[in-house]
Amino acid sequence: MPIRPELAHEQPYGAPQLDVPVLLNVNENPYPPSPDVVETISREVARAAEGLNRYPDRDFSELRQDLADYLALETGVAMDPFSVWAANGSNEVMLHLLQAFGGPGRTALSFAPTYSMYPEYARDTHTRWITARRDEDFTVDPRTAAAAIAEHRPSVILLASPNNPTGTALPPSTIEAVLEAARTADPATPAVVVVDEAYAEFRRAGTPSAVSLLADHPNLAVTRTMSKAFALAGARVGYLAAQPDLVDALRVVRLPYHLSAVTQAVARAALRHRDTLMAQVGGLREERDALVAWLREQRTPAGAGLRVADSDANFVLFGTFADRHAVWQGLLDRGVLIRETGPDGWLRVSVGTPQENAAFRRALTDVVEALTNVIEETA
Amino acid sequence: MPIRPELAHEQPYGAPQLDVPVLLNVNENPYPPSPDVVETISREVARAAEGLNRYPDRDFSELRQDLADYLALETGVAMDPFSVWAANGSNEVMLHLLQAFGGPGRTALSFAPTYSMYPEYARDTHTRWITARRDEDFTVDPRTAAAAIAEHRPSVILLASPNNPTGTALPPSTIEAVLEAARTADPATPAVVVVDEAYAEFRRAGTPSAVSLLADHPNLAVTRTMSKAFALAGARVGYLAAQPDLVDALRVVRLPYHLSAVTQAVARAALRHRDTLMAQVGGLREERDALVAWLREQRTPAGAGLRVADSDANFVLFGTFADRHAVWQGLLDRGVLIRETGPDGWLRVSVGTPQENAAFRRALTDVVEALTNVIEETA
Repeated sequence: MPIRPELAHEQPYGAPQLDVPVLLNVNENPYPPSPDVVETISREVARAAEGLNRYPDRDFSELRQDLADYLALETGVAMDPFSVWAANGSNEVMLHLLQAFGGPGRTALSFAPTYSMYPEYARDTHTRWITARRDEDFTVDPRTAAAAIAEHRPSVILLASPNNPTGTALPPSTIEAVLEAARTADPATPAVVVVDEAYAEFRRAGTPSAVSLLADHPNLAVTRTMSKAFALAGARVGYLAAQPDLVDALRVVRLPYHLSAVTQAVARAALRHRDTLMAQVGGLREERDALVAWLREQRTPAGAGLRVADSDANFVLFGTFADRHAVWQGLLDRGVLIRETGPDGWLRVSVGTPQENAAFRRALTDVVEALTNVIEETA
Repeated sequence: MPIRPELAHEQPYGAPQLDVPVLLNVNENPYPPSPDVVETISREVARAAEGLNRYPDRDFSELRQDLADYLALETGVAMDPFSVWAANGSNEVMLHLLQAFGGPGRTALSFAPTYSMYPEYARDTHTRWITARRDEDFTVDPRTAAAAIAEHRPSVILLASPNNPTGTALPPSTIEAVLEAARTADPATPAVVVVDEAYAEFRRAGTPSAVSLLADHPNLAVTRTMSKAFALAGARVGYLAAQPDLVDALRVVRLPYHLSAVTQAVARAALRHRDTLMAQVGGLREERDALVAWLREQRTPAGAGLRVADSDANFVLFGTFADRHAVWQGLLDRGVLIRETGPDGWLRVSVGTPQENAAFRRALTDVVEALTNVIEETA
């Protein structure tokens, strides 16, 4: 078969899906939809099902309005439906962005360590993939960014904030510096700067969203997802906010009717419960802060401690371990699945329910005790 | 913004979505899901909703099994789940095929007139798009096909059967001739031959499905959709059957978790009602045959008659008109929306309910009478 040579030996992307009591590996929201949410979803889907013989609204106008309303509420920035786009997961939103603005002969730039799907989006759209480095503390240095943009002349720049797998949020000043560097590098057609805010709702107080920068920047797009804060990973709803001209470019490359009537109904149903769901996010933020603090307190008898990245997300990156795989396996042996990802020596744990987080803490204490000297750093 | 130059002046694809009493324009199934089907969908989605905080089964194993069972029943060919793939509409299935086997530097070949989305899939994947001609009766001449394959050396060949917008089904001998020509043109890596059977369930008795050829052809893929026969256009479920190696190539290019847990649940719910839904398809086939016969009987006072393409689908292509737009507009003015598509002078009407088809017949009679000499052919 004429499979493309660059794909011939590739494995399908995805974390192992294992059957383990405590799943803290893919940054899911640990709380299933409440009976109230399930009931609204079921009722709205039943209503949509009555018309499923017809194609869905190609422009999903009602959902765009609802998402605009939600974003306005969450960020304090006025928003209209023509500034909103949605797709089957933020990964399809990213695909649309790279189809419209990347592609053959073009470059996408990001800052490592960052989300491991990005190079796959680039590969799937034949976009050259370049990474510059984040600093030691996982922030992006505006000078490093400007130099990389000047050198590589990307047409798309991907900034995850909060970043996965590090949890690091970027201050608006960094994003503005990147936007400025993009303009300087190519004043006629500056790169599209994509701020991936999949985890935005988990950011700490005082961390603004890049949505506040949209009015001044026609080449800025801020992506979001309902997977995390809305506990809707299974429903595959990602979206973005940008000026209407940028959104219109995505309409050209989307497959017609890409968002099913059922997906539209499910997303709208969940958005109606936003107050309850956001209260839950508040609880997860507290759990996250407690987990960061606990990890920073741990000491081996020899005095070694953990490095723990500041987190504005629903996960925590911690390390460093002489043998991270052994730690990951030790946790798995104790019924706790986390993710072996990020820079060498680090591991990522999602924030679960209080019970799940307690199970993780117990398992980690146990593993670190069993694996003498596995903690590499003295923080 | 750095929108790709080939997209800069493109309009988003899609037929006009107008609010008209009789919608016979996009080959939808005219029958909404029955209360039984709605109830199963609602119940299964409620069950799925309880776990929506988790990502869906990336490999949608249960749905693949159910689709394999259905295909085996519908075609009489044994089928296992590893031979089945699914995505958000058969257009996403096509995208996966062209991502895996087409792309920059490669060519996709089809036979015009055919489905108007194909060139968009090619454009979106940077695949060169070439069409050879169908014969006057809209079939594909195996010699024409072999010559085009030898000349253009495509890596993907798209054969719609039944073809949209003409309704023409290809006999297995034509598909085998195309497979043979692909092997002759490049014995080492013959092109992937995609038979698009979106309308397969509407084929007339005695027309076999290309599924019967799968066992002997590792480079054959047969695509289907639940939009038409299952009256599920709003749910966006397309699928294909092929040998497992071909399916595995698609797993590499799919976005992870591309098929939501809700979509999986809706599709499985509808598949449980396959017997009732297939009985409905039987009724539509009869309506289609009656519509073809009626169209062929029409005569103007001057003796002019219509040309009507044989149809194995849930629509009929008819003409030819000196001014097809005037006919289309005349029907729309009388509350009947059909599609202005296909070769010059032809129009396409979807098969609706008996009431809708009667409304179409009345409106057409009226329009043809009003527009003197609009029928061009004397059939």
